[in-house]
Amino acid sequence: MNYKFSENISGLKASAIREILKFTSDPEVISFAAGNPAPEAFPIDEIKSISKSIFDDNPILALQYSITEGYPALRNTLKKRMEASGTFNPETDELIITSGAQQANELTAKVLCDKGDTLICEAPSFIGSLNAFKSYGINLAGITLENDGVNLEELEQTLKSTNTKLIYLIPNFQNPTGLTMSLEKRKAVLELAKKYGAVILEDNPYGDLRFAGENVPSIKSMDKDGVVVYSRTFSKILAPGIRVGYVSGPKEIINKIIVCKQVEDVHTNIWAQVLAERFLETCDMDKHLEKLRGIYRNKCALMLSEIKKNFSSKIRYTQPEGGLFIWCTLPDGCDMMGFCKRAVEEFKVAVVPGSAFMVSENDKTSSFRLNFSTPTDEQIVKGCKMLGKLSKEMFGE
Amino acid sequence: MNYKFSENISGLKASAIREILKFTSDPEVISFAAGNPAPEAFPIDEIKSISKSIFDDNPILALQYSITEGYPALRNTLKKRMEASGTFNPETDELIITSGAQQANELTAKVLCDKGDTLICEAPSFIGSLNAFKSYGINLAGITLENDGVNLEELEQTLKSTNTKLIYLIPNFQNPTGLTMSLEKRKAVLELAKKYGAVILEDNPYGDLRFAGENVPSIKSMDKDGVVVYSRTFSKILAPGIRVGYVSGPKEIINKIIVCKQVEDVHTNIWAQVLAERFLETCDMDKHLEKLRGIYRNKCALMLSEIKKNFSSKIRYTQPEGGLFIWCTLPDGCDMMGFCKRAVEEFKVAVVPGSAFMVSENDKTSSFRLNFSTPTDEQIVKGCKMLGKLSKEMFGE
Repeated sequence: MNYKFSENISGLKASAIREILKFTSDPEVISFAAGNPAPEAFPIDEIKSISKSIFDDNPILALQYSITEGYPALRNTLKKRMEASGTFNPETDELIITSGAQQANELTAKVLCDKGDTLICEAPSFIGSLNAFKSYGINLAGITLENDGVNLEELEQTLKSTNTKLIYLIPNFQNPTGLTMSLEKRKAVLELAKKYGAVILEDNPYGDLRFAGENVPSIKSMDKDGVVVYSRTFSKILAPGIRVGYVSGPKEIINKIIVCKQVEDVHTNIWAQVLAERFLETCDMDKHLEKLRGIYRNKCALMLSEIKKNFSSKIRYTQPEGGLFIWCTLPDGCDMMGFCKRAVEEFKVAVVPGSAFMVSENDKTSSFRLNFSTPTDEQIVKGCKMLGKLSKEMFGE
Repeated sequence: MNYKFSENISGLKASAIREILKFTSDPEVISFAAGNPAPEAFPIDEIKSISKSIFDDNPILALQYSITEGYPALRNTLKKRMEASGTFNPETDELIITSGAQQANELTAKVLCDKGDTLICEAPSFIGSLNAFKSYGINLAGITLENDGVNLEELEQTLKSTNTKLIYLIPNFQNPTGLTMSLEKRKAVLELAKKYGAVILEDNPYGDLRFAGENVPSIKSMDKDGVVVYSRTFSKILAPGIRVGYVSGPKEIINKIIVCKQVEDVHTNIWAQVLAERFLETCDMDKHLEKLRGIYRNKCALMLSEIKKNFSSKIRYTQPEGGLFIWCTLPDGCDMMGFCKRAVEEFKVAVVPGSAFMVSENDKTSSFRLNFSTPTDEQIVKGCKMLGKLSKEMFGE
């Protein structure tokens, strides 16, 4: 039988990261390509003991159908914490638990955008979200990402000339660049969104992983007009395998997301929701986050110093204050894909070519992404040495 | 700010079952409205011990990011079991783990149907799937459901006159009717689908819960031409709260579903997948299923005998050989919604009005759905008495 697939998904390809990750099943290959938390970052003892207590106290709660909005106790805990930090207004906001922030971002686009609408994003940006938006036939408009956030002139020009419903931003330690948007730009973007009637989807998976510098207020915390939908996740601070995220924002929007989540997966795994709630209520999350920040601070510093020591001086790179990624840029006009291919095939180090994060994989970029959270310290040292060798061979000292 | 929602989801309403279930938070109300497994149907001791062993043996496996296709050991186990039962062909088929069968059905429609395409379903059918299809702007064409399956003339007429991409069927103990499609009709539907180039989505959540009569082969097991996509779930045989389902069928289709699942929730909760795999590998699933069948056989028989004893003789009802539901039909032209409202408000028994399961809630039906898996025996007896009283008051002895 010949199958005809829907127009929206016909062009959708499996993430290029996935393709690179295939090489990483080769035990010889050092992977700087993933975005996994470090194995030592999981609070295994706490999770083990909470899981046991769930089955001791109330097994049916963790196994029976639950409601689409999410486990009430978890929602209440999150709302209270967010209200305290200025990112949730109980008068006007609502919150729903999602199956990871991936679903939060995907559903926000589904409820707000029709096929052919424009969605503005940073260029480069997180490939998982970009593909989710594309799966609804949404047109992506990428705005050049500068060291302190998107280029504001370009942003306004695009808002003026398109039917933009949604602006997707990762203001903290952005994936893939590790860059953080300045307070000034956050304010300016909020004003522009208001002026042109676009909703901002602020994706903040790494916000709790700031290991240097000063915290910058979220756009959500500055929003008094219901412009911002704010998505967060337990993936980077508890465990990604449990698939628990959440999204909050104007009640009207979240209520539509609830209806759409119901038809997508009914509700998020309820054992995982109870686990997250009990972790927040019974463990010391601040202490746990301090530990995570320590792990990533050290790994990032090690990778940066090894880059400095080993890489060709022609390669520029970002200096993240948090998150999981460093963004390296080769000299203009050189063969970035060739570099990435030789890196994994000859030098046995996997990195993600920057093209994977562009609005179109044909958009020009000479950058690639490095992850420092997953490899061991030994792998960071060895991998950087190998990449350094290749970079000097290709671009000189 | 004024929000403009996407066209497809603007008309989407929260499930009417949800609205009725709100009444069931009143502890006085007996609910025949849910579709939950009986609390005594959960293998709690086994799940508890498997969960402990997962965290003892390999906690990182159950917490770290995993692959979109699903936990390889679970996929292999399922493929082998399905191959043995003639529902998986390793040469031509593939299988993916989903976040419940809800996601399996939703993704199948997403990859195959464009906005405006026609999807054929039984009328009535499962509201969760119908709403998922509607959320993509797909037109639903409902085919009259007879005691042995859809009306074949109507089916062919609709296939002839529309651009039908997908035929959605629940052949075993259908939700909401409890009806089972005959072997003859299964064969005929497969032939018609082939003739008109439509894919069949065979949803089989209750297949393992046959407590009477003879097994009827699945449509998938008769398909030699890649016509059938087959979705199943652990919700009714292990636990719905873990949200683990799976869908198998032609490789080409499943590979597209994998790409779409990746952008929806990356992967299904991995702890739950490992749990399902270890349950299949280390526990006696056959014995467990026998126990479940025993529970539901008794509950169904009790409800049927209480209906017979108490209801007005004007009310017709189905006699399911499995599953969780009985479908009752009031005399033609009477006020079904009025009956359901009085049932919950005055008589404190919640049932689901049949209109909830129609392609359009305005489609005429004088039926309603009863669930026998969730209430206790005592509640079944008392609830049927109350419904009987109301039915005799409205329709005579």
